[in-house]
Amino acid sequence: MATKPIPFAELLKSAPKNWGRFGPDDEIGALNFLTKEEVLRGIRSVKSGKVFTLGVPLARPGGDPLYPSRSQPIRTMAMDKGFYLNGTATPFPGGMEYADDVITMFLQGTTQYDALGHVWHGDTLYNGYDAKTTMGGLQKCSIEPIANHGVVGRAVLLDAARYRGKANLDAGERITLDDMLEIAKQQNSPIEKHDIILIHTGWLKRFYDKGFEGIFPGGAFNEPGLGYSPELVKWFHEMEIPSLGTDTIASEQTSHEESGTMIPLHMALLHYQGVIFNEIDWLHDLAEDCAKDSQYTFLFVGSPLKVVGGAGSPVNPVVIK
Amino acid sequence: MATKPIPFAELLKSAPKNWGRFGPDDEIGALNFLTKEEVLRGIRSVKSGKVFTLGVPLARPGGDPLYPSRSQPIRTMAMDKGFYLNGTATPFPGGMEYADDVITMFLQGTTQYDALGHVWHGDTLYNGYDAKTTMGGLQKCSIEPIANHGVVGRAVLLDAARYRGKANLDAGERITLDDMLEIAKQQNSPIEKHDIILIHTGWLKRFYDKGFEGIFPGGAFNEPGLGYSPELVKWFHEMEIPSLGTDTIASEQTSHEESGTMIPLHMALLHYQGVIFNEIDWLHDLAEDCAKDSQYTFLFVGSPLKVVGGAGSPVNPVVIK
Amino acid sequence: MATKPIPFAELLKSAPKNWGRFGPDDEIGALNFLTKEEVLRGIRSVKSGKVFTLGVPLARPGGDPLYPSRSQPIRTMAMDKGFYLNGTATPFPGGMEYADDVITMFLQGTTQYDALGHVWHGDTLYNGYDAKTTMGGLQKCSIEPIANHGVVGRAVLLDAARYRGKANLDAGERITLDDMLEIAKQQNSPIEKHDIILIHTGWLKRFYDKGFEGIFPGGAFNEPGLGYSPELVKWFHEMEIPSLGTDTIASEQTSHEESGTMIPLHMALLHYQGVIFNEIDWLHDLAEDCAKDSQYTFLFVGSPLKVVGGAGSPVNPVVIK
Amino acid sequence: MATKPIPFAELLKSAPKNWGRFGPDDEIGALNFLTKEEVLRGIRSVKSGKVFTLGVPLARPGGDPLYPSRSQPIRTMAMDKGFYLNGTATPFPGGMEYADDVITMFLQGTTQYDALGHVWHGDTLYNGYDAKTTMGGLQKCSIEPIANHGVVGRAVLLDAARYRGKANLDAGERITLDDMLEIAKQQNSPIEKHDIILIHTGWLKRFYDKGFEGIFPGGAFNEPGLGYSPELVKWFHEMEIPSLGTDTIASEQTSHEESGTMIPLHMALLHYQGVIFNEIDWLHDLAEDCAKDSQYTFLFVGSPLKVVGGAGSPVNPVVIK
Repeated sequence: MATKPIPFAELLKSAPKNWGRFGPDDEIGALNFLTKEEVLRGIRSVKSGKVFTLGVPLARPGGDPLYPSRSQPIRTMAMDKGFYLNGTATPFPGGMEYADDVITMFLQGTTQYDALGHVWHGDTLYNGYDAKTTMGGLQKCSIEPIANHGVVGRAVLLDAARYRGKANLDAGERITLDDMLEIAKQQNSPIEKHDIILIHTGWLKRFYDKGFEGIFPGGAFNEPGLGYSPELVKWFHEMEIPSLGTDTIASEQTSHEESGTMIPLHMALLHYQGVIFNEIDWLHDLAEDCAKDSQYTFLFVGSPLKVVGGAGSPVNPVVIK
Repeated sequence: MATKPIPFAELLKSAPKNWGRFGPDDEIGALNFLTKEEVLRGIRSVKSGKVFTLGVPLARPGGDPLYPSRSQPIRTMAMDKGFYLNGTATPFPGGMEYADDVITMFLQGTTQYDALGHVWHGDTLYNGYDAKTTMGGLQKCSIEPIANHGVVGRAVLLDAARYRGKANLDAGERITLDDMLEIAKQQNSPIEKHDIILIHTGWLKRFYDKGFEGIFPGGAFNEPGLGYSPELVKWFHEMEIPSLGTDTIASEQTSHEESGTMIPLHMALLHYQGVIFNEIDWLHDLAEDCAKDSQYTFLFVGSPLKVVGGAGSPVNPVVIK
Repeated sequence: MATKPIPFAELLKSAPKNWGRFGPDDEIGALNFLTKEEVLRGIRSVKSGKVFTLGVPLARPGGDPLYPSRSQPIRTMAMDKGFYLNGTATPFPGGMEYADDVITMFLQGTTQYDALGHVWHGDTLYNGYDAKTTMGGLQKCSIEPIANHGVVGRAVLLDAARYRGKANLDAGERITLDDMLEIAKQQNSPIEKHDIILIHTGWLKRFYDKGFEGIFPGGAFNEPGLGYSPELVKWFHEMEIPSLGTDTIASEQTSHEESGTMIPLHMALLHYQGVIFNEIDWLHDLAEDCAKDSQYTFLFVGSPLKVVGGAGSPVNPVVIK
Repeated sequence: MATKPIPFAELLKSAPKNWGRFGPDDEIGALNFLTKEEVLRGIRSVKSGKVFTLGVPLARPGGDPLYPSRSQPIRTMAMDKGFYLNGTATPFPGGMEYADDVITMFLQGTTQYDALGHVWHGDTLYNGYDAKTTMGGLQKCSIEPIANHGVVGRAVLLDAARYRGKANLDAGERITLDDMLEIAKQQNSPIEKHDIILIHTGWLKRFYDKGFEGIFPGGAFNEPGLGYSPELVKWFHEMEIPSLGTDTIASEQTSHEESGTMIPLHMALLHYQGVIFNEIDWLHDLAEDCAKDSQYTFLFVGSPLKVVGGAGSPVNPVVIK
């Protein structure tokens, strides 16, 4: 038996891949499944016109939820009423004054999309590009082509917390493929081919209730979520799932005990299949509403910024029910 | 006759206002018009499922189009393949490596939304809040409530460049209310109450064709666009227009010669009526497509980031035809 | 008896002030005492030519010591060998390649000087300027005039940790005027008029030994250092001390229990007398050396950056023994 | 004859090198020449106690002089009186309020030092380190060891502008070795072994007089300064010059016509000999003073920040005459 951690090249040697499937120049992966027809399928899922925005507050006093290696966003003023009160600034002709601000942030330091070149193992990015093309800015598989395309289609919310009968999954708790299918069944919202999948774990709400300790209990990064299995990976491939979003920082169960690896779905889904990962979504209000009206499917519009060479981008996804 | 510039308090003393109309705590202005019913009206305008994203490239080598008092966005790498090649970074268990980046930017230094507290004259913001609440971050009328709500509804594109028979309007060229109505008529796309209005001037394309000289000819900031008139302002009020977007930096004719003021629609529409301004939209491809299929109305989804206290936010608006 | 905290206007109503002493336009305070003669006195204190630099490492992986309301510095690459390896960058004619980097930091987020406009109480800055002149950037009493002048003179190191017979003072531990004078006496290094004073508490070394817990035990900000007393304040005034530097974040005992105030020396010395505060100095190696050669006085050269409107500046002070 | 540009490997194949001279772990190059004895020589050059600070204003409204690929520094407020006026911030116990600010800047975007790993050709840094060690931050030859050491010694100012009888050298104008020696002779200030050399060209003053056009006439980067020749390079090696500073952005004549290369002294002096380059010094006031008192030699104290992995650092050098 292999020594842990099992290298991804070994663990995933038989895993399905979409490299080359969409041509040698492809940089958007499973987003290719979101054709005009799928957009119309999303449009048809709209019933009442209710809108939910899934971004979290950004540059909040007290801090934002983000991966520990990233710094908190810093937003500061470049212009405000104070500049006029003391003569630093002069109003425009007619008397207009304005406020203006600057932000410094990790592009993935809030609700965000990963580019397909955000992660890899060995020397090769999604679709076979050289990983050295990431140096100094992603020449390939940046967030820009994803932002050019947009993420528009039908989505289904899977309320894993409600399924488990608690406010949130526990640290490290796993959701399996069977769980996913069972949740969809109990919700009476079967997952269709090409559906965008959102998974509500309740984990993110712990941040706003309990602070950093809520999502890093004891200082550890050990999120609950969808857990790797060959069956799950195969199912995503067969269902041609374009995108996965959750209310955690990495959108999957952090540690895969059986293989000793960390966040293996970033490899098996994002890197191999080109599934677009959407992270740190605020799903609480949406999940509450779905529980009330029993409508778990809707139009989803995710639109990251066209950051040239960017490994990711902040986003405020929109759900229209 | 008044000496120019005529102060806005004088010029706009009879202009219609929405202050108080949506309650004393309102911070989203004309966005209140975008109810569930209006969302459904937008949904119904979708025909083919074609998607357009209106953001411009961000942090482009060579520079981005932005207002001269703002600095160019700076995007730099915090992690890439180079960090692994020389041992600066260690792969995750299993072998995952990643790229990560940081951005410093003016929040309005690319395609963006203005918050309602972004501009004012005198001491008072939209809805009567004290302008001193902008100091250190917008306590009132920040971009956050706009981002919470989302900008979702039916939009109409008015192709002013095509109407004038040229690739782009000239520096300082005015579009009047009559022009707007005539464009809509010629396009066979009558403007309905509560429509989001997009105006294509062709101006922004000059930046990508000719560089900074293209949009600041001779170093001057003198954009074409919708020009102030009492009639225009009254029409916006009666039509209850929620939002205005264009392919210029300030979304209106820069100088109003008759009054000697600058960007008076920021006062008459944004500040007085709470119309949400969306700026630096890439409308070229959309306008080309509308000319081909004669469909000038569609679903519009604008979703700025929930920047706490922010005077504005970058955005990548989505159009679904 | 007054209720705690006693307002500074009350606590310091009889405290000596240098406002107006150096003219109505003065922005450098006690730095005025550092005349050419004092520079020469510093020069004469040099014996061996040994050099010590007092800055701490900046943007260190693992974090830097700084006041909790400030964010960690972020340093990222704008150019390095990786950009050439993958063709992102082209060498200069002849073949030169280069590395370049960008930093985002609080100007006081490392070893630093405070500007005289950095702190105040009520509505008035040092020398009587309106505190509203700080809005949007310090129009008065910024770090720029201090940086123009430079901080050059004779300094004396007072090793408070050694005096107390331990590696570092404890959290909240006070050094009194009598302690200062006794330390100088035991060191055989009497403090002269116009001496720059450096106080070694050993506190900063706890950060590098024990991390954030070392300097924020239990999450509290409670530093040891010089403690407020009317006598101490009077002594500084009579001795015309130009500058005070220590190896803590705020260069004084954090809490003054008797008055219930926080960092009162920032008011009594910096704000009232214009004493220039220098914080987060690395004094460990210097103190070790002074203990060895018994030379506790030397030339000091402090040279913050000329940040226009800056409330402070990073610095790497130089000691020449 | 070789085709231009002649590669540096060819042009400098016989040029003197200090690689290995100071041991295999050396990262400070010619700074090793600045021993305690040289510090004392600098101390002895002090006559009157006059102090000059050589930094330029940083983050100035209107812009700073910097290399065109770098962005202007952005300084913004994180705290000021405005935050207290509107209740955003609460005074400390006792009533202290404060101002605080944040900067984003290129580390070489103002008066600065280059690290020895800032430039190279081919695959190798100063002293033989692999150029790939620059990726993600300089593991070798960063500015940190230079900042730990400090740049302290005797310096000589060579007033090339005065020598040529004009306010400033012209664009691209060359100073040769013979010029240097003749300037020193005319000034009656012979250059001694281990002297820090400062060259006044007057070029930088054009920026403050004429704006960007003053130093980038017609948009070109074509600075005057010391020009490459094998003799000059040999002389620097024999004289063991530790550091070179000037009032231009790159501290040397930009283009070397004979070889078709750009800034060859960055290779021949900095990269091969480990000479520490100091750029964008404000030398105008110092040069005026030297002309008056005929004292062209003095103590120099340069103290960049200890930026971990930094390719350079801002600095405000101090001259004591």
